[in-house]
Amino acid sequence: MLVLILNAGSSSLKFQLMNHATHDVFARGVAERIGVDGRLAIESNGTKTKKDVNLPTHKEAIELVLESLVTKPHKVIDSVEKDIDAIGHRVVHGGEYFSKSVIIDENVITKLERLVPLAPLHNPAHIMGIKICMDLMKEKPNVAVFDTAFHQTMDPSTYLYAVPYEDYKKFALRKYGFHGTSHHFVSKEANKLLKKDNPKVIVCHLGNGSSICAVKDGKSIDTSMGLTPLEGLIMGTRSGDIDPAAISYLMEKKQMSAQDVVNYLNKKSGLLGVSGISSDLREVIEASTNGDERAILAIDMICNRIKKYICAYAGMLGGLDAICFTAGVGENASIIREKACENLNFMGIELDNEKNEKRQTGKREINTNKSKVKIFVIPTNEEFVIANDTYNLAKDL
Amino acid sequence: MLVLILNAGSSSLKFQLMNHATHDVFARGVAERIGVDGRLAIESNGTKTKKDVNLPTHKEAIELVLESLVTKPHKVIDSVEKDIDAIGHRVVHGGEYFSKSVIIDENVITKLERLVPLAPLHNPAHIMGIKICMDLMKEKPNVAVFDTAFHQTMDPSTYLYAVPYEDYKKFALRKYGFHGTSHHFVSKEANKLLKKDNPKVIVCHLGNGSSICAVKDGKSIDTSMGLTPLEGLIMGTRSGDIDPAAISYLMEKKQMSAQDVVNYLNKKSGLLGVSGISSDLREVIEASTNGDERAILAIDMICNRIKKYICAYAGMLGGLDAICFTAGVGENASIIREKACENLNFMGIELDNEKNEKRQTGKREINTNKSKVKIFVIPTNEEFVIANDTYNLAKDL
Repeated sequence: MLVLILNAGSSSLKFQLMNHATHDVFARGVAERIGVDGRLAIESNGTKTKKDVNLPTHKEAIELVLESLVTKPHKVIDSVEKDIDAIGHRVVHGGEYFSKSVIIDENVITKLERLVPLAPLHNPAHIMGIKICMDLMKEKPNVAVFDTAFHQTMDPSTYLYAVPYEDYKKFALRKYGFHGTSHHFVSKEANKLLKKDNPKVIVCHLGNGSSICAVKDGKSIDTSMGLTPLEGLIMGTRSGDIDPAAISYLMEKKQMSAQDVVNYLNKKSGLLGVSGISSDLREVIEASTNGDERAILAIDMICNRIKKYICAYAGMLGGLDAICFTAGVGENASIIREKACENLNFMGIELDNEKNEKRQTGKREINTNKSKVKIFVIPTNEEFVIANDTYNLAKDL
Repeated sequence: MLVLILNAGSSSLKFQLMNHATHDVFARGVAERIGVDGRLAIESNGTKTKKDVNLPTHKEAIELVLESLVTKPHKVIDSVEKDIDAIGHRVVHGGEYFSKSVIIDENVITKLERLVPLAPLHNPAHIMGIKICMDLMKEKPNVAVFDTAFHQTMDPSTYLYAVPYEDYKKFALRKYGFHGTSHHFVSKEANKLLKKDNPKVIVCHLGNGSSICAVKDGKSIDTSMGLTPLEGLIMGTRSGDIDPAAISYLMEKKQMSAQDVVNYLNKKSGLLGVSGISSDLREVIEASTNGDERAILAIDMICNRIKKYICAYAGMLGGLDAICFTAGVGENASIIREKACENLNFMGIELDNEKNEKRQTGKREINTNKSKVKIFVIPTNEEFVIANDTYNLAKDL
């Protein structure tokens, strides 16, 4: 089945056209600056193009993407109508409604609309993308794949915050967790490698946004992101955990509104804020090797936080079979993996420095032979999960 | 040396008169509702009194306390002038200025005044108490003992939040930690029991306010409270850790100011908020044994949070020799100790259920014989630390 995978943001649209069975990607690209001016970048069969276009709304963006797929130089199919079988939409927030992917109908759209307050930047864009697809490609099934769904297996004692219980009920104020498709995919791959009963796995999804997930026998039991993706690890520009009273303190000190402080914690903090150099870890690592003190500090802070979560989640799992590193930073930054696992021999975690340093692609094991806990690097593939879920739901329609 | 120990709050004043060497408490009590109407409760040699009095300011409260100590029925000394040797003040916030207790002079008071923005409720009351004592008992040494001082040994990679570094510099926005006198005292007692080099100890101070501290070779290396006492564990009425974006979410949903939300997280959340029953753990435990679901949930949440911090700090310590439980809840609530240590055998932590259940006072060991990690119950004594520090600083004057 040929699946068009869409990730609609507030002013952007990422897409891939993927064969669900072979995982072959026919084309991928991104439309940007929608509503501003417009730019479209596409890659297919080794050909890359990038051009300025007119994209007043997401509708023009999706139309242009579809047109590009049947037109040279990116002609990868003959006809949208005949060759695209289904559309899979990445949706950030499924709230408590969705614990797995679903075929989208009016009822699903109503629920996504109700969830807008929980994801005010993302869900409106997703809904827009979905409606345009339903309009442009009538008859084709649309599937929603949620970042939150995998974490719906968490126990109330884990997902609740210690606020008045009635406010959880009234305002749906709780931990949701994100990156669920990635945590799901990577933990499944790890379980295949482990081949044991009731595997206890921790997935460290470390990218520009980062989260950790504790997975017991294939089910998420805890994760570091919360009501929003701000909680938890220190990320490219996000602070992660901080004393909640720091919000009112910063409001007073910097004369900002609460929303401004939350934006500041989301966009100006994290690796960028501490290092003062960049939100891109590669640049900060380079500065640290040149002795930049704040770069070294920022890396230490990131790794301490990861280590604390690994150990906390090992406790919640009551033991540990494997730690998995994934996503841009997790797959590539050996220094982060090294420092996050440092001094954890007492828990049976022993990294093999040589294996860790070796630059390699694909799944690999980087623990020593005597390490009780396996340490894996497993490339994530969220698009594969979206294509797969879309296939499974659409195939019987 | 006879030390008068004072803990001045915004409308209250706790005191003890203690012999620093024998730890004998001659009298203890509390003046309450200062500035409202006034009440004074005192206990000495088994005699307890409680009376309504007129306490327009802290000055009258301190005067009345001093007078009571030389008057029947609580006459424990002949003369304030001759018999009280020094005054030890509990001070909540010493910021980055104070890493240990100090003799108070004008310079110290200036620094305490500079720290008011970090402890707007506490430090002004402490300063008031100090000035009144200096005025009423000229010539007598006053010593400040800080809740924060013990944690000043934390590394920047631990005490910094991942916000723009310049804002740490400008606004002193960082983790300070509290309950330092208790963590210091209890970890020292644990080290005496352990009798080993470089002991790695975790102290769980669980009271109405609660925090955990990782202590390596006698030095605090991490602690769960932060810029304020709101961060970290779930407490009687405090939420502890929560997605910082929940603040702006609650402001919008409940139409509250940021300060109101922080108050709500400090005063209406935690055990009280989740259980809907009480901030007093004893009442919630009772309800849980009667099958109250939210009581059970609240206890699970508290214990999960403690467990996560224990494991995270074991990671930061690179191993663990002992876990210590202290303060009201830590010393008395066996169910909390049990659930916090549950399923941690993989880390060498094994509670002996019988020893844990046995109601007892004093220091005790409650792990199994084969547990690699010792589990201690160690009663805290913050007043003893204050008396002792006051003696050590005042004796050579």
